[in-house]
Amino acid sequence: MSRRRPTLAEVARQAGVSVSTVSKVVNGHLDVAAETRRQVEQLLEQHQYRPRRSPSRRRVGLIDLVFQDLDNSWAMQILHGVEQAAHEQGVGVVVSAVRDEPSRSVRRWLDNVRARSTDGVVLVLSELSPEQRSQLDALGVPVAVVDPVGDLAHDVPAVGTTNWAGGLAATRHLIELGHTRIATISGPTRVLCSRARVDGYRSALDAAGLTVPEEYIGHGDFTIPGGYTTTHRLMQLPEPPTAIFAGSDMMARGAYEALFELGLRVPHDISVVGFDDLPEAAWAAPPLTTVRQPLSEMGQMATRTLLRMVNGEDPSSRRVELATELVTRASTAPPPR
Amino acid sequence: MSRRRPTLAEVARQAGVSVSTVSKVVNGHLDVAAETRRQVEQLLEQHQYRPRRSPSRRRVGLIDLVFQDLDNSWAMQILHGVEQAAHEQGVGVVVSAVRDEPSRSVRRWLDNVRARSTDGVVLVLSELSPEQRSQLDALGVPVAVVDPVGDLAHDVPAVGTTNWAGGLAATRHLIELGHTRIATISGPTRVLCSRARVDGYRSALDAAGLTVPEEYIGHGDFTIPGGYTTTHRLMQLPEPPTAIFAGSDMMARGAYEALFELGLRVPHDISVVGFDDLPEAAWAAPPLTTVRQPLSEMGQMATRTLLRMVNGEDPSSRRVELATELVTRASTAPPPR
Repeated sequence: MSRRRPTLAEVARQAGVSVSTVSKVVNGHLDVAAETRRQVEQLLEQHQYRPRRSPSRRRVGLIDLVFQDLDNSWAMQILHGVEQAAHEQGVGVVVSAVRDEPSRSVRRWLDNVRARSTDGVVLVLSELSPEQRSQLDALGVPVAVVDPVGDLAHDVPAVGTTNWAGGLAATRHLIELGHTRIATISGPTRVLCSRARVDGYRSALDAAGLTVPEEYIGHGDFTIPGGYTTTHRLMQLPEPPTAIFAGSDMMARGAYEALFELGLRVPHDISVVGFDDLPEAAWAAPPLTTVRQPLSEMGQMATRTLLRMVNGEDPSSRRVELATELVTRASTAPPPR
Repeated sequence: MSRRRPTLAEVARQAGVSVSTVSKVVNGHLDVAAETRRQVEQLLEQHQYRPRRSPSRRRVGLIDLVFQDLDNSWAMQILHGVEQAAHEQGVGVVVSAVRDEPSRSVRRWLDNVRARSTDGVVLVLSELSPEQRSQLDALGVPVAVVDPVGDLAHDVPAVGTTNWAGGLAATRHLIELGHTRIATISGPTRVLCSRARVDGYRSALDAAGLTVPEEYIGHGDFTIPGGYTTTHRLMQLPEPPTAIFAGSDMMARGAYEALFELGLRVPHDISVVGFDDLPEAAWAAPPLTTVRQPLSEMGQMATRTLLRMVNGEDPSSRRVELATELVTRASTAPPPR
């Protein structure tokens, strides 16, 4: 199936520019008019052009770590692991957030990377458009991903966490406490990790011979307001749940607020389990029982994999999931009689 | 007072090495034996050698952001601001933590920076030894500091926060609620910001005509256990306080734990105010009244100042303090009758 690699001359002819201009775009030089560059990039993408990776490429001792946003404790923990793994090898970590208008922001980041050069990229992006993806490819450096939430081209090494097993463990914990009416607040369904957590929840209930009424599966968006609204909806059901497994700590926090408003006490009247184990989880009242994602370790492993690729080695494995762990605090108890 | 700038030849003669070796050390080349480099650096330091900063120095489009540790929400907020300000100007931010053994770690970071070059440094270090300081000087790039806690050479531009005014505002708030027995938990006294917060506390009490018994000034170390132990000590006084101003949110959290153990309810039996406004503060039960440090804005301003210096401009001012703000939540109330 693999197509003949197009020559730069062919691309140049189609774009109506000189070969040297195409070469400049491929090599990331900045002295090409934006409109021309865009046109050439489009043609390169159509031709699925991949620059040859030269193993003798000059190292700059830097890798890039790209987040959607830096505005949360989640990002901090990943950075902590990435920095540690890079530091061990004397490599610096350039941190960027492509917030707000991701498409413009990603372009700006790419321009910056082209100008200064990088040895590789650790992506913690939730989504990347095909165009952005091809721009990233055009950099010709290795890429590794932490906790992907969308569908990735399968040649990108990715470190995730055992979301399914985490959903299973959280739900089993509630079943063992004696709950039978267990609801969940799922994250966005377009996000794979949300689906995996809900599937783990379903499996635990199935295995225990419990049915899952469809209306027990609420949908949030990983935010506090999302958890709040969905909890209010769940508690208005004719048979409200006695336990809620929230797909993120933030949504669990929203659940706390809704339950407080309804005059329900956690965990006496209703149990709540979160997912993530953000630093905030231990501060909640009562401290939140939750599923720990090993974010720092995930960042470390993605970085070590990337640095192996930078050194010309193959990543030992394309897709790794590190184990989640149930952290039992004070938000779960047997159901009220 | 300024001494004659020593020639590299003089330094070379004293070190018993060639001028080109000294030049290599000054310019950060790595092909000099570690022992030799150390010796030359020492001599350069003795001579207070400062490399000339050439305005035509080639920019690399990168600045360095150096933390003591990345293990807290505090660092995240600063990074958020630094990245934003750098991003605006298309500059990348290399993030490092010089944890554990700061002296070895700082050297490693410096080696890395020498190898790849940087346009400037934003430091969020609590302390830097004179040796490290001179190594940093030898890089010959501008430096700006966020929230210094020690005594800095006064030619380094620094962005802090109004710690004194914050301590004043927190204490005034408690006085206005009717408290007269107000204790404080200070951070380490060698740290200037701790002193400023306690001085603001004293001034508020003085201005209100209240005396401050010395035993009301407890000492913690900015950690949860520090706040916990000190609170137990304060509550054993013959006249225990009805309100505590903790010099950090972490210490306030420790105070919550001690008070809970003693069966005291916040805020009905005793009021607590923190300092920092970490994301965790809003999750505490009851949500913590605290003094917000504008950490993100501090990072932004330090970065803008640094980038002005990178462009050869003078920083508009050497020392700036951004305003703190009292965030009133649910941990403060009038004293019990």
